[in-house]
Amino acid sequence: MTDFAQTRALFHLPEGMVYLDGNSLGPLPKAAVERVARTVRDEWGDMLITGWNKAGWMDKPMNVGNRIARLIGAEKDSVAMGDTLSIKVYQALASALEMNRPRKVVLSDSGNFPSDLYMAQGLCKTLGEGYELRVVAPEEVLDAIDDTVAVTMITEVDYRTGRKHDMAAITARAHAKGALTIWDLAHSAGALPVELAKAGADFACGCSYKYLNSGPGGPAFIYVAPRHQERARPALSGWQGHDAPFAFDLDYRPARGAERMRVGTPPILQLAALEASLDIWDQVDMAALRTRSLQLTDLFITGVEATCPSLTLATPRDHALRGSQVSFRHPEGYAIMQALISKGVIGDFRAPDIIRFGFTPLYTSDADVTKAVDILAEIMANSLWDIPEFKTRKKVT
Amino acid sequence: MTDFAQTRALFHLPEGMVYLDGNSLGPLPKAAVERVARTVRDEWGDMLITGWNKAGWMDKPMNVGNRIARLIGAEKDSVAMGDTLSIKVYQALASALEMNRPRKVVLSDSGNFPSDLYMAQGLCKTLGEGYELRVVAPEEVLDAIDDTVAVTMITEVDYRTGRKHDMAAITARAHAKGALTIWDLAHSAGALPVELAKAGADFACGCSYKYLNSGPGGPAFIYVAPRHQERARPALSGWQGHDAPFAFDLDYRPARGAERMRVGTPPILQLAALEASLDIWDQVDMAALRTRSLQLTDLFITGVEATCPSLTLATPRDHALRGSQVSFRHPEGYAIMQALISKGVIGDFRAPDIIRFGFTPLYTSDADVTKAVDILAEIMANSLWDIPEFKTRKKVT
Repeated sequence: MTDFAQTRALFHLPEGMVYLDGNSLGPLPKAAVERVARTVRDEWGDMLITGWNKAGWMDKPMNVGNRIARLIGAEKDSVAMGDTLSIKVYQALASALEMNRPRKVVLSDSGNFPSDLYMAQGLCKTLGEGYELRVVAPEEVLDAIDDTVAVTMITEVDYRTGRKHDMAAITARAHAKGALTIWDLAHSAGALPVELAKAGADFACGCSYKYLNSGPGGPAFIYVAPRHQERARPALSGWQGHDAPFAFDLDYRPARGAERMRVGTPPILQLAALEASLDIWDQVDMAALRTRSLQLTDLFITGVEATCPSLTLATPRDHALRGSQVSFRHPEGYAIMQALISKGVIGDFRAPDIIRFGFTPLYTSDADVTKAVDILAEIMANSLWDIPEFKTRKKVT
Repeated sequence: MTDFAQTRALFHLPEGMVYLDGNSLGPLPKAAVERVARTVRDEWGDMLITGWNKAGWMDKPMNVGNRIARLIGAEKDSVAMGDTLSIKVYQALASALEMNRPRKVVLSDSGNFPSDLYMAQGLCKTLGEGYELRVVAPEEVLDAIDDTVAVTMITEVDYRTGRKHDMAAITARAHAKGALTIWDLAHSAGALPVELAKAGADFACGCSYKYLNSGPGGPAFIYVAPRHQERARPALSGWQGHDAPFAFDLDYRPARGAERMRVGTPPILQLAALEASLDIWDQVDMAALRTRSLQLTDLFITGVEATCPSLTLATPRDHALRGSQVSFRHPEGYAIMQALISKGVIGDFRAPDIIRFGFTPLYTSDADVTKAVDILAEIMANSLWDIPEFKTRKKVT
């Protein structure tokens, strides 16, 4: 059984701040400070080029991938790290579309993170005639899977509302209709137990800087189901995904397995930070994490609904449909979030009217939740968000 | 005038090591230790999500690009950082091919780094019917540019031999024949003065972990000539290249200028290391760097040729055709390099028979060159490379 008071102590949480934005950028694992410093000083500094072998840099994308595999229910050696989530979405999409010719439709929903849609739009344009991204409402996804669909590209947990799709049901329906599936786990990996293999998912990808706490710009991951690994042609056929990168052949020949989805030189400093975080994750029981996550989100929903009647819950009440965040709608959402931030409660605003709060059992306490509810209630009761300084429009992330 | 004894003091160079592999992985700028630590501790740790604005993370890809622009003769705001070199090659290639329809031929040479060729092969396969990567010998490039060529994809300095192409001549010829140009500056950026704007280059890309000393897996850069920036469609259309990334529109609309070539979340820790290195580069006069580089490579060539008759020079003697490295051929090149490394002289082996040495004025001294020559001469005179421990085949980078 995971002791979440103990894991909380392993993170640096600034004094006086209630951080409910770990679904945007996870906080610093204390051990990452020394881990990154050691990589800079003792590995890069002292080993120089020999670090690729001596410090195991070359193998990190697959070794780290194997540690993430447990968190997302993936088979050994089926997860490769690198690049960014958008790039990994592109790779999965390009492979899947080619595997499922002559179909040409990518099905997604309007709750997907826009970058996934953009990458699909870009790829469809590159592929040309007939390729199409079809976007439906989240609740229409299941019915929209027909036998014209080549691949479904769905983010399991909605980045705005926290609504969770039924991965097993959508995957089963897709397969019944002859479609392949790509699951974006940006708001799932480290947020709740994911069972890729059990659900029969074909491809998946996700980022590591949210619930997995790897720091700003940490590398992404891609999952390729073992049954597809030898057929999936990497559209981004870089040398690190070559079967023999150091033979310097003039012709590309993909590596065996998911390693073929590596592209260029891996970001060793970012990977070091991620490894420090995974030292914590290695100890976490995912079922216990889910139980705790639902306690936290329930507590917040109950508290806010009891004190802030003008906020409308955007997150499903049904546990089966909820990720690890809670969102409310309000026309002045942007200003409300600015007021919250000024009082030390860090959440996120997502256009047009969503304020969202991430609940991350590794370091969110009941006291955090209570304090956040109290401050939000005070802001709403006194219309603090209605004063000019909180209305200034700024770029938010 | 740059004082290269002074810049040398700014790098961490392990005691007793002669490091001639800065063309593979540059050494650690001493200031990078604290710079990265500060980014981890004070920015990620204390600012958390607000670092995207407060610490300027969001703008780093273009701000850092502008500092590299001076080193490669690029216009302001025409260089974007991110991803890896292979990804940036793909982006340039996809845009250029689309801009130059209906032509379908990518011209490159067999001296190009294989990953560039692989990425082109992958893209041609994705684009389908008629798309072709045509690979000629390096010396045939100029004549091979005919009016079927859509784009030339040439690495200016050969990663094995150090032979330098004539960027201005090839670009002029390409334009005369209606082709666009992509220049890979992996072994040029920070190695010698590059004049992209003056040469009329269309696209360029490069990595930062070689001569630019950003550390293992540091981000790549892409250059788009200002005249193409509004027409170049990003094939990898990620949200960070969107005109309004935080509007979360469902449709992609490219940002103005080269910023559209950004894809996903930038790697902030790796960028911090690069910035520490650029603090040194900001002070370097590129003409002085070139003069010094040629002194160093001349000194090494003269020394080795006087003492090691069985080694065959693979690098051009003509200064105009030489980058900032020197390579020799020998059938036992791999074992010779192993012997050198065991004696503290770090160079690189490149299949099938090349030993290569990078000369990097920022920290390579005359004493380094002399010592390397002496040790190489001793190894060759005594056939030290002929003993079994140096013949063991291992993965080298």
